[in-house]
Amino acid sequence: MTANMIDGKMPWHLSPPDIGELRDAAARMAPILIETPLLESDRLNARLGGRLLVKAESLQRTGSFKARGAWNWFSLLPSGAAGQGFVALSSGNHGQAVAWVAGRFGLGPVVILMPEDTPRAKVERTRAWGADIEFYDRSTVDRAALLHHWTEVRGHIMVPAYDDRRIIAGAGTIGLESLRQAAARGTRPDRMVVAFSGGGLSAGCAIGLTGSGTTLLAVEPVGYDDMARSLAAGMRIANSAAPPNICDALLAPTPGALTFDINQRAGTTVVTVSERHAREAVAVLAKEFGLIVEPGGALPLGALLANPGLAADRTTVVVASGANIDTSLLSDILAGG
Amino acid sequence: MTANMIDGKMPWHLSPPDIGELRDAAARMAPILIETPLLESDRLNARLGGRLLVKAESLQRTGSFKARGAWNWFSLLPSGAAGQGFVALSSGNHGQAVAWVAGRFGLGPVVILMPEDTPRAKVERTRAWGADIEFYDRSTVDRAALLHHWTEVRGHIMVPAYDDRRIIAGAGTIGLESLRQAAARGTRPDRMVVAFSGGGLSAGCAIGLTGSGTTLLAVEPVGYDDMARSLAAGMRIANSAAPPNICDALLAPTPGALTFDINQRAGTTVVTVSERHAREAVAVLAKEFGLIVEPGGALPLGALLANPGLAADRTTVVVASGANIDTSLLSDILAGG
Repeated sequence: MTANMIDGKMPWHLSPPDIGELRDAAARMAPILIETPLLESDRLNARLGGRLLVKAESLQRTGSFKARGAWNWFSLLPSGAAGQGFVALSSGNHGQAVAWVAGRFGLGPVVILMPEDTPRAKVERTRAWGADIEFYDRSTVDRAALLHHWTEVRGHIMVPAYDDRRIIAGAGTIGLESLRQAAARGTRPDRMVVAFSGGGLSAGCAIGLTGSGTTLLAVEPVGYDDMARSLAAGMRIANSAAPPNICDALLAPTPGALTFDINQRAGTTVVTVSERHAREAVAVLAKEFGLIVEPGGALPLGALLANPGLAADRTTVVVASGANIDTSLLSDILAGG
Repeated sequence: MTANMIDGKMPWHLSPPDIGELRDAAARMAPILIETPLLESDRLNARLGGRLLVKAESLQRTGSFKARGAWNWFSLLPSGAAGQGFVALSSGNHGQAVAWVAGRFGLGPVVILMPEDTPRAKVERTRAWGADIEFYDRSTVDRAALLHHWTEVRGHIMVPAYDDRRIIAGAGTIGLESLRQAAARGTRPDRMVVAFSGGGLSAGCAIGLTGSGTTLLAVEPVGYDDMARSLAAGMRIANSAAPPNICDALLAPTPGALTFDINQRAGTTVVTVSERHAREAVAVLAKEFGLIVEPGGALPLGALLANPGLAADRTTVVVASGANIDTSLLSDILAGG
């Protein structure tokens, strides 16, 4: 794990959280965040030949799982941070979460750095939570330099999107919670399937699933298989290009350093899924469960629709991780477009 | 309560359930049905000037609260019923619930008597659960005579949609569950708002809320204010006409005998809400919570959008009771149509 070391030491925030930190994070969020349900459809179970439990995290505060990490991060912020500004890089869901949580804690101002091609719903909802947005060109701008300006020149505190033990612990509460809810229904999942962008959700769930016997499968969109190639190479590899993809939430250029380490050690496996199956999963979640889920959040179900053998004869939890989709795209998908 | 008496005695199934029967019903359904979450949006709270908790019952099995009553009814069926057919009158949600539950219990066949103008999604989903459907003309057919044919001539067992203590006890679990979930979030609702058609949901919730201090408000669509007029008259009065209304689930011609009695004694109050506010509520539930809710299920929120004073300075639970909306109507509403 040398990639994370500074002066030969591992900084605290880039070391893995233990499962006790996930439990603490869960206790912190219980009064405010939503315990999202595990949904089930006998019709979909019959189609897949196995038992599917949909963790409807699209119902979370601000419409994505990102509220969990942001809540935990701000909860652990030293008190001296009051009066300072915050900045975050986000494709839209982390930005909404940071803006909402900062507001809840009475902190700010908040600046969100977003790609120019961010869906309108995400832009509008991030602004509605009180954040300022600065747009950048995904294909040309050096994100590190942009962030450096806001942290070093403007003095804002950066809220990491995934490569941070507090963020990972927050996301990992989904793993703990799903196991507990499944146990209450008399079952233990064989597998949990989550979307992969920077890797915070899968890293957190990998820790949350420790010792449970439930394996973890991460899902990447076609063209953004940086994690699959990184695992194969044994080192972090960036995507070589940034082609358009409907899964706007899953286009991070490279796995995080800490998230890569955690997933590699935990034995997380990865599959890549097409845009067609992302769209089909959005339609299935709407029709079978009455859930509005964005393409990136639906991709884990898309993995099962594309490869029904993955779900056959076992119990699978798929995390539907975000709801923030433009109305026009949702209508187009529901009309069969 | 003379209306319910037969030969001077009250038949068991037309007597009110007590709160213990609701608790028993909740225990019966816990392994299979969904504990639907209470959702919250700070943005919507700010708009309404109070705290709103949305009971997302649209996520229930078969997409509506009707699964609770049907589950409880079939759970209490005498064992001699195996091998018999079942019949139910339904605008679509009760029919889906009956068809699914009967299948789960290995019982059938199931015949659902549906109005000709039932939305396509409800027809298709009822068939997909294995039921046969017989359509009738809402404005001309004598429902009692139609039902008589199926029960007396064909020998099917009728599964009541609302006027039955087992159905009411099942629906009432929503009241108990909402109070418990609100308490876990540190609050006690001042008011609960539910849709009114035959009155099973409100009757059940009235019993579930007994002694809690939470008042109950029932909501009817414009043109179907039979319960409001019945309460004013102190006796059951039918709607005089059957005009078209977008809330297809809420067009029962008259309150049930038992449900009227229970709501009258409990002091349930009623408001009437326009189609415009039903549509607005569908849009708000989609955008703020990522929930697909049909117009009739969204009407309780419509009541608050139409009368923000109802929600101001208090905590309100609104039940979003059904998801089964045609895709074309949903898209039209989301596009602002």
